[in-house]
Amino acid sequence: MLQIYFGQKVNCFTFVKSESKNVFMRNAISAIDRYYKLSAQSKDLVIQEFEEVRMKKGEVLIHENIRSPYLYFIEKGAVKNHYIDEKGNKKVVWFGFEGNICFSLNSYIDMDYIHETTELLEDSLFYRVKINHVKALFKDHCDWANWGRCFMESVFINTVLELDEFKSLTSKEKYMKLIKSNQNVKERVPLKDIASYLGVSPVTISRLRKELNEL
Amino acid sequence: MLQIYFGQKVNCFTFVKSESKNVFMRNAISAIDRYYKLSAQSKDLVIQEFEEVRMKKGEVLIHENIRSPYLYFIEKGAVKNHYIDEKGNKKVVWFGFEGNICFSLNSYIDMDYIHETTELLEDSLFYRVKINHVKALFKDHCDWANWGRCFMESVFINTVLELDEFKSLTSKEKYMKLIKSNQNVKERVPLKDIASYLGVSPVTISRLRKELNEL
Repeated sequence: MLQIYFGQKVNCFTFVKSESKNVFMRNAISAIDRYYKLSAQSKDLVIQEFEEVRMKKGEVLIHENIRSPYLYFIEKGAVKNHYIDEKGNKKVVWFGFEGNICFSLNSYIDMDYIHETTELLEDSLFYRVKINHVKALFKDHCDWANWGRCFMESVFINTVLELDEFKSLTSKEKYMKLIKSNQNVKERVPLKDIASYLGVSPVTISRLRKELNEL
Repeated sequence: MLQIYFGQKVNCFTFVKSESKNVFMRNAISAIDRYYKLSAQSKDLVIQEFEEVRMKKGEVLIHENIRSPYLYFIEKGAVKNHYIDEKGNKKVVWFGFEGNICFSLNSYIDMDYIHETTELLEDSLFYRVKINHVKALFKDHCDWANWGRCFMESVFINTVLELDEFKSLTSKEKYMKLIKSNQNVKERVPLKDIASYLGVSPVTISRLRKELNEL
């Protein structure tokens, strides 16, 4: 049984066969693969810097007003991102699962516009790497520079969707789009968080589920 | 006097000293320089593909529903981006001047969410290059891959501002932010377009200008 501690560097893998390493980190590695095709050698430049982080349901991974210097790759677990809107209400804007990356946009691109907190929906295991380490790779490694380019394009598309596209949809359309985008949402996210994400009451979600024969 | 025609490739510069070329294309080249430091040799990989385009005030450079395969670098002139909102009103969302780049986001990152038309506010001169040419450079040139990464970060920040940050400001704050961001807006953009950008009436802008002792 592999022992994992908060913040421990994964040097323990140094003498483990590459395939075994890939089994333990399968979802974190899939998060890298999602954005740009990198050689195994290039990927190792990040994987060898991975630190393991385990946290409990309800704990906060990234605080909205504190810059976080890491990219966190979700190996196992679920998170939600939320912010406090102008009326003081907590508004959920994103759900993350295995193979997603959690990070502070303000830290990543040095701006000060998006203040979101990342909170755990389940006990979770992350592999984290310093943003500065990845940015150093961008400078000298063409494939990592392209990874950064494609990663940013993906972040852009998701943020535009989050901020804009949803506005013109009905609650039912939003709900269907959300659950279609990721089966995990329906199975692993509490009703109240789905309601907050859609900007409706939990009762409305129950009604929608009934309409859609989900209950 | 240099003769310039729509869509003509700038081979005429082949035998012109590099400094002379840079004088003619100063603003277009500054648009490249804005995002990432490239060597002169790397920059030339785009500059040598530049085509000159001259168009008249009121003409449309990029239509909202037609994919445009080019990046247009503004050498001289001014443009506005607008879209038709859910109520059928034309809403101005961006002003571009010398040193800015006009392009269709849908074409650049192959999505279908942002439908903006780019229309000329003044007679203008652009240098254009095919998006596919730039994307081919990303693959093999680390500095161009980083240019693409930083360009996307900048587009992201500006879009977030456009979609989100403005919401919480008063008309006066928005107006001050807009004219502070670029002196050209006050001097070269019609009142009605500034009003559309801010979502207020032209009368409100006149009142704000009076308040700010601009009249």
